[in-house]
Amino acid sequence: MTEETYEVDEIIEELIEEKKDVKEILTDMKNICELMVDLAYSAVLFNNDELAEEVKALEEEMNKLRYQLEIRTMVAARNPEEAGQLEGILRIGAAAERMSNAAESMAELVLRDIKLHPVVRDALQDADEIVDRVKVGKNSKLVGKTVEQIRKDAKYGMDVISIKRGKKWIFKVDDNEKIKAEDVLIVSGFKENVKALKASK
Amino acid sequence: MTEETYEVDEIIEELIEEKKDVKEILTDMKNICELMVDLAYSAVLFNNDELAEEVKALEEEMNKLRYQLEIRTMVAARNPEEAGQLEGILRIGAAAERMSNAAESMAELVLRDIKLHPVVRDALQDADEIVDRVKVGKNSKLVGKTVEQIRKDAKYGMDVISIKRGKKWIFKVDDNEKIKAEDVLIVSGFKENVKALKASK
Repeated sequence: MTEETYEVDEIIEELIEEKKDVKEILTDMKNICELMVDLAYSAVLFNNDELAEEVKALEEEMNKLRYQLEIRTMVAARNPEEAGQLEGILRIGAAAERMSNAAESMAELVLRDIKLHPVVRDALQDADEIVDRVKVGKNSKLVGKTVEQIRKDAKYGMDVISIKRGKKWIFKVDDNEKIKAEDVLIVSGFKENVKALKASK
Repeated sequence: MTEETYEVDEIIEELIEEKKDVKEILTDMKNICELMVDLAYSAVLFNNDELAEEVKALEEEMNKLRYQLEIRTMVAARNPEEAGQLEGILRIGAAAERMSNAAESMAELVLRDIKLHPVVRDALQDADEIVDRVKVGKNSKLVGKTVEQIRKDAKYGMDVISIKRGKKWIFKVDDNEKIKAEDVLIVSGFKENVKALKASK
């Protein structure tokens, strides 16, 4: 059994377990794609390899979702006419993949240390508000705190854009969401606040 | 004078007037690109031609920004070494363009009435929360209201994602922002609320 077939099996299993329909798959794609674009640009703007790595991880998620979309589509087509009607979905999947590939290629530029003119680099690094990735340690002071508390603890504006918990992403983060050990937080806010948060990781 | 050279002149004029630096151009690109992805998927999910048209308009904005980025880059390069250091910026611009082109191609699918299986179409249209475009008329009841008021007037959740005012987009909409006649609002919220808002346009 190759790695590739294993992955397809895993995707089919997820589809059966989660009973995801086309709308849910497209909504997941939308959320992931928006986050990829945000993080890819942020990786460039703040020259941040960690954000670029998250973009690559999200690209993997997008690939899985595209498989799911295709499998759902193929299963639904019972005759040539229906197959024709389902072709539109496959085109949507292709456009989604092009978008996420482009976001990934922007992130790759950061990982491959693109040459930036010092003036440009300085201009980019001279940002008050930044986006960063914070990995929450097992014994972190953040564990158990709600997102709202984290926002209030910060002196100035601070926001948790999304949380990666194990293999799952939380895109629309609720104020009452409690931080767990091993969470990966994508945060935006004033540089000092973000640094303080990273220090208490 | 062709239309193309006129456009380039206009872009250069804007650059000189606004004194946009690379960081500002990239930040604008980030905001536009995120909105494009949001609207392209929303156009598909809610089969909404108006949203798809906005994606096309935003693609034009992205083209302008890419020109601006390239012009800024070329002006900054005073010798071959510097030109080499600036090449990274051009690559970022290319990746940005690929992203926005992909978003546009997704929107195009909606405008070209892609064939969707009835089951899929029904599933997509059966959404409680939708995204839509509201054009504010000259005598609309909305004129003069703040975004916060609009949110409070709605029975359930309602949000103004962005506002297009003339040629300019407001991406991070302030609660105190007052709606003006001719504004185009991109709103998300429960279907009934959005319909009510469209009716009072």
